[in-house]
Amino acid sequence: MVGVQSIPSPAITADERSHEVDHPSSHVAQFGSEQPLRLDCGVDLSPFQIAYQTYGELNADRSNAILICHALTGDQHVANVHPVTGKPGWWETLVGPGRPLDPNEYFIICSNVIGGCMGSTGPASINPATGKVWGLDFPVITIPDMVRAQAMLIDRLGIDTLFAVVGGSMGGMQVLQWTAAYPSRVFSALAIACSTRHSAQNIAFHELGRQAVMADPDWHHGGYADRGIHPHRGLAVARMAAHITYLSDAALHRKFGRRMQDRELPTFSFDADFQVESYLRYQGSSFVERFDANSYLYLTRAMDYFDIAADHGGVLAKAFAGIQTRFCVVSFTSDWLFPTSESRALVHALNASSARVSFAEIETDRGHDAFLLDVPEFLDISRAFLQSAGKARGLTANNA
Amino acid sequence: MVGVQSIPSPAITADERSHEVDHPSSHVAQFGSEQPLRLDCGVDLSPFQIAYQTYGELNADRSNAILICHALTGDQHVANVHPVTGKPGWWETLVGPGRPLDPNEYFIICSNVIGGCMGSTGPASINPATGKVWGLDFPVITIPDMVRAQAMLIDRLGIDTLFAVVGGSMGGMQVLQWTAAYPSRVFSALAIACSTRHSAQNIAFHELGRQAVMADPDWHHGGYADRGIHPHRGLAVARMAAHITYLSDAALHRKFGRRMQDRELPTFSFDADFQVESYLRYQGSSFVERFDANSYLYLTRAMDYFDIAADHGGVLAKAFAGIQTRFCVVSFTSDWLFPTSESRALVHALNASSARVSFAEIETDRGHDAFLLDVPEFLDISRAFLQSAGKARGLTANNA
Repeated sequence: MVGVQSIPSPAITADERSHEVDHPSSHVAQFGSEQPLRLDCGVDLSPFQIAYQTYGELNADRSNAILICHALTGDQHVANVHPVTGKPGWWETLVGPGRPLDPNEYFIICSNVIGGCMGSTGPASINPATGKVWGLDFPVITIPDMVRAQAMLIDRLGIDTLFAVVGGSMGGMQVLQWTAAYPSRVFSALAIACSTRHSAQNIAFHELGRQAVMADPDWHHGGYADRGIHPHRGLAVARMAAHITYLSDAALHRKFGRRMQDRELPTFSFDADFQVESYLRYQGSSFVERFDANSYLYLTRAMDYFDIAADHGGVLAKAFAGIQTRFCVVSFTSDWLFPTSESRALVHALNASSARVSFAEIETDRGHDAFLLDVPEFLDISRAFLQSAGKARGLTANNA
Repeated sequence: MVGVQSIPSPAITADERSHEVDHPSSHVAQFGSEQPLRLDCGVDLSPFQIAYQTYGELNADRSNAILICHALTGDQHVANVHPVTGKPGWWETLVGPGRPLDPNEYFIICSNVIGGCMGSTGPASINPATGKVWGLDFPVITIPDMVRAQAMLIDRLGIDTLFAVVGGSMGGMQVLQWTAAYPSRVFSALAIACSTRHSAQNIAFHELGRQAVMADPDWHHGGYADRGIHPHRGLAVARMAAHITYLSDAALHRKFGRRMQDRELPTFSFDADFQVESYLRYQGSSFVERFDANSYLYLTRAMDYFDIAADHGGVLAKAFAGIQTRFCVVSFTSDWLFPTSESRALVHALNASSARVSFAEIETDRGHDAFLLDVPEFLDISRAFLQSAGKARGLTANNA
């Protein structure tokens, strides 16, 4: 290994490590009353904690750190077996030895967002003022709040400038917010299948999901935890709705078409006759085992509120004025949740800001989910972009 | 008036008219044990009844009858004030004096589909065998079943051949089924914003809606009526999901964009901050006042099962072999629920059957709902098609 050395995460105390009991495979950084998280809603959240995973090692220059920002229902377990589901990490197509984000080259960090439910403080955490679960008393958080908390974590890890910030969907929104809020701390940015603001249709689908959760009597206006229950049914319906938006019509047709489930003729009942019905039901029921319903409300709300231009007088280009960050923007032809037109609008704004930006629209019928799948062209572009940025950054590949 | 005379609906008895107490503005045709409705699931449904509206008068030749087939959440109240909601008829853009379907020229019939909840027999009706509401004991019905029941009504009205069958969405499916099942009884067919079978994505959205209904504890496996309750919350969520699919992304953007509701800044809460949220909530809550949850399950199921080609060895053209009916197929550019590609496939099959067919794809950003709206090009095409078919049929316009 050249130019790379292992360093301990300096700011993580033994006390913090004790929290790993709850989330055995994650580190937890705690922020006490002297370091509140100032939220957009006006509340100072304190204390709070951030659960995170790292892969690889920080080099001596502290110049090879990549922050991965996860999507709505993702978490910090990017490239390791998930402690709850036992499934592989959610982005092992992109992250891992020999992959575009190789832990042999980069120090890769992924933290659970604030408001999440995999170890970072969120509505399912204990409110220290009451000793009870926050529920809906948890303050509404925003994408900028998530990024502000991540910046505090990056500070804690002793990293000044991130080599790259990478994410898709809600993760891509965080990437863009990082570059707008901390332009000097982001050397390169890979923003995938995202936009700078939610469309009315995006908001509508999220509102549908929230209404499904809130319609479940077990939700109890967010107070289900005290009753030892969880609005499984409503959350499953919300997940089904979202899942349809993650796939293209063509992908659903190819995967399922009108094929029946283990039979040729309809049952003339409300059983899952069609394979696509069975698939959706499974998506709903498996999701509720690993996700908190209130977190779902908070994170969808954060995405709906997100609007970079609105914070800059309605002019998107102003958000990126004078920025030195190298951008790579990626969209997928069949993504109807974040269509290419959204990425083009972003690229135009970046061009207007004289930012360095490359843009790739990738031909695939796999819909929004393509960013999580083994789509070779996407993986190749990601690798090439990071390698090029790495040269500019003076990084030397370990395995060169 | 030339060539037109008023005739009473000959087969409607005084007993049948007494049922109008429940549905004051509709006629009700009853079919006793001697006339069961043979359903695709193998059940003979008997007795059953069909509630219907008529506008205009049948001419002496009985050659000017138009049957309108309603969509999923429509009913027979096409062109009169709705008895429950007090709102105008759902297709007053198309039907009415001076409109393309003018009651001064045509005898216009619209019946509530079997399985519906506005007076025709459906899951909310009383099961004569038990004296209780059918609920899920009601047999699963199909689009062909709906059309078979309509044919019995048309027989009852003494009409041999319909001048036209007209419908959009689920109504369009019935139009196509009419031509496939009773080609000699349909002189012309206007099929709008529909397809010959549901795609996997269509099925997925319907399954989402069904799961939302079934997730509501007030549903009680369909047995809510006996308990004097109704799964309002689940049905409202189902309606919200469906409603998103009826509008295009562009239409939602134009109508609502990201505009806030009576304010400029977010509330940082889960209130309906955005106008589109408030709109969706209203769509959900107003729908449940007029629609039965079990009917929603049955009718969505019927649409999912529909597949004309499947009944003809998988070859769509065979369904229309040798057909003399004049077809007009209409699609809308921004309809992503029944995209133009579906209409083109239908037109290709009709061409392969040497059927007379005209096809119009209408440029609009209003999505699937365009067929219900004041879209002049669509209305002009409908008028021209019916006038042309009327000449071929030897109809003379009253107002000529």
